[in-house]
Amino acid sequence: ADRAAVEAVRRRDCELTKPPGSLGRLEHLVEWLAAWQGRSPPDVRSPLVAVFAANHGVAAKGVSAYPADVTLQMVANFAAGGAAINQICLAEDIGLKVLELAIEVPTPDITEEDAFDEVGLVATMAFGMEAIAGGTDLLCIGEMGIGNTTVAAAIYHALYGGEASDWIGRGTGVDDAGLARKRAAVAAAVARIGGERDGLEILRRVGGREIAAMAGVILAARHQRIPVIVDGFVATSAAAVLHAVDDHAIDHCLIGHLSAEPAHAAVLARLGKKPLLDLGMRLGEGTGAALAASIVRAAARTHAGMATFAGAGVSGPSGGTH
Amino acid sequence: ADRAAVEAVRRRDCELTKPPGSLGRLEHLVEWLAAWQGRSPPDVRSPLVAVFAANHGVAAKGVSAYPADVTLQMVANFAAGGAAINQICLAEDIGLKVLELAIEVPTPDITEEDAFDEVGLVATMAFGMEAIAGGTDLLCIGEMGIGNTTVAAAIYHALYGGEASDWIGRGTGVDDAGLARKRAAVAAAVARIGGERDGLEILRRVGGREIAAMAGVILAARHQRIPVIVDGFVATSAAAVLHAVDDHAIDHCLIGHLSAEPAHAAVLARLGKKPLLDLGMRLGEGTGAALAASIVRAAARTHAGMATFAGAGVSGPSGGTH
Repeated sequence: ADRAAVEAVRRRDCELTKPPGSLGRLEHLVEWLAAWQGRSPPDVRSPLVAVFAANHGVAAKGVSAYPADVTLQMVANFAAGGAAINQICLAEDIGLKVLELAIEVPTPDITEEDAFDEVGLVATMAFGMEAIAGGTDLLCIGEMGIGNTTVAAAIYHALYGGEASDWIGRGTGVDDAGLARKRAAVAAAVARIGGERDGLEILRRVGGREIAAMAGVILAARHQRIPVIVDGFVATSAAAVLHAVDDHAIDHCLIGHLSAEPAHAAVLARLGKKPLLDLGMRLGEGTGAALAASIVRAAARTHAGMATFAGAGVSGPSGGTH
Repeated sequence: ADRAAVEAVRRRDCELTKPPGSLGRLEHLVEWLAAWQGRSPPDVRSPLVAVFAANHGVAAKGVSAYPADVTLQMVANFAAGGAAINQICLAEDIGLKVLELAIEVPTPDITEEDAFDEVGLVATMAFGMEAIAGGTDLLCIGEMGIGNTTVAAAIYHALYGGEASDWIGRGTGVDDAGLARKRAAVAAAVARIGGERDGLEILRRVGGREIAAMAGVILAARHQRIPVIVDGFVATSAAAVLHAVDDHAIDHCLIGHLSAEPAHAAVLARLGKKPLLDLGMRLGEGTGAALAASIVRAAARTHAGMATFAGAGVSGPSGGTH
C-alpha cells in the first residue's frame, strides 16, 4: 500500500468544502483506492467486471435448483446482453468481460475426487490473471456456475471448521431436500480431505475453476496496482483461500455486497471485512460488486473534483477560513 | 399507488433470467418505482437532486460548528460546481437544482418565536413545489442550512417526545459546549410550544424554511407521480411532519441513506422506513439520496433490459424452460 498517497488524500480531504469526516465511508474508499492504485488523487476511469464461469461435478449430486446446462446458457445470455450484470454495467457505465473456464468439462465431483491436480490449479489461477490483461483501474470479480455455492461452502467449512450446515444456504433457491443433499455433499467433501488447513490445498481439493481463477486475478491485481471489489458469497471464497495463506493478501480487496446467503456474514467477520452494500441480493455475476463500484467511483470523483475552503471562499469551523 | 403496475412488474420479474428474488431489494425498488410512477416497466430518465437552502435564527445560539454565513457561501459553491453534491451528480449523471429560501433573512429563533406565521408556512411549502416544475421522474431532496440539525431535532422532539438529548447529535461537528447549547435550544423550543402534536403546526412553530419547502415538494411529487428519495437527518424531518398528519403521506418516499447522526435510526423506526444505504455520511446536500438514486436507476434498467428465460433459451428450476 502506498502510504504517501493515502496521506496526500487525507491532506486534501481536510481542505474540501465539507465538515471533516462528513462523507463517512466515501472518504475511506478514496484512501483505499489511493493506497492500492498508488496515486493521489485516485481515479476510476476504466472499471471492469470480470465474470468467471465454470461447471462442477458435484452439481450431479442435486445440490442446485437449476440444471448444470444453465451455466453455458447463461454465458450465451451474457454474450447477448440479457443478464442482470449486463444491464447493471450498462446503467453504471462499467466494462464487462466473461471468462469461460472449460464449461463443457466440469471439475470432478469434490465429494469423491480432488477438483484439480497441482498443475491444473496453477494453470487455472494463471488463466484468471488474463482478466486484467486489457487493463483496468478498478476490478470487480463475479461468477456463474451451477453448484458453486456448494463448492464455496466446502471451502469455508474446510477453512473455518464448525458443521457443514453452518456454511450452506439455499443458493439460487434449492428446496429442503436439495438443502439436505447440499449439506451432505459439503460434509463429504471436507471429510474426504481430512484436516487439511492450507488455503491453496483446500482450493485445489474442494474448490472449482471460477474460484481458482478469481484467486489468481486477486493476486495479479495486487501486483498491477488494481484495487479489487469482490462480489458475494462465492467470489469471497477466492479471497478467503488467499487470506488463509496470508492475512494481508486481500488488503486491496473490498467486499461489494453482503449476500443474502446466510453464511456470508460469518465469513466476512473472519476476514475482517465490512461489505459496502446490503441489498439482500444473492445472484452473483458480479452484480453487487458492480453497484459498489459505482459508489467507489463517485467517491473518487467527489474527492478529486470538490473545491477547497480557500478556493471557494467558504468559512471553516468557528468562522476561520482554512 | 398503482397496483396494476406493481403486478405487471412482478409478472415480468418472474420471467427474467435469474432465480426469483435473487436481486433482493432491487426488485422491491422497481415495484416501488412502478407503484408511484404508475407505469410498468418504470424508468429513471431525468433524476433530479433538489437542494433547499435556508438560514435559522437559532444559529445565533451557537448550535453549529460553522457560522451562519456558510449557508450563502455554500450556495455560491453549489453554483460554481465545487460542493460534494455537484461532484456526485456529475459522477452519477443526475440533475441538480438549488432553491434558495430567503437566505439573507433567517427565520426567527425558534427558542423564542415561531418560525413562520400561517401564510409564511404555506407560501414556503408552495415555493418548494417549484423544484419539480421543470419535470423529473425521480426526485432526490436534500438541504443546506447552518443550524438545521437543531431545527430538525426540535421537530423530532416535538413529534415523538422523550428528552431533547434523544434527538440531537454533533451535526457538522459541534464540540461538547456546542452540543450542550444545542440540547438547551431544542428543549427551549419544544417547551415553548407546549404539547403541540399537530405535524404542520410543529413545522410552523419550530421548523425552518428548507424543511417546509421539502414538505411541500414531497406532497406535490405525490400528485405528479414522482417517487421521492429523502436524503438524511434533516430532510427526513420534512417527511416526518407529513407522516404525523397521515401515516400514508410518505409511502412514495424512500430514505436514501442512514445518517451518522445518531437519532436518525430512531426516527426511521417510527416512520417504518429502512434506508437503502448506510455509508456513515452526515453531510446533507442530498448526497446520500443521489447515491441511492443511482442504485434505483440501475434496478429499473436491469428490470426493463434483462432477457426472459424463454427469450434467452435459459432453463428454469428443475430444467424446465419457463
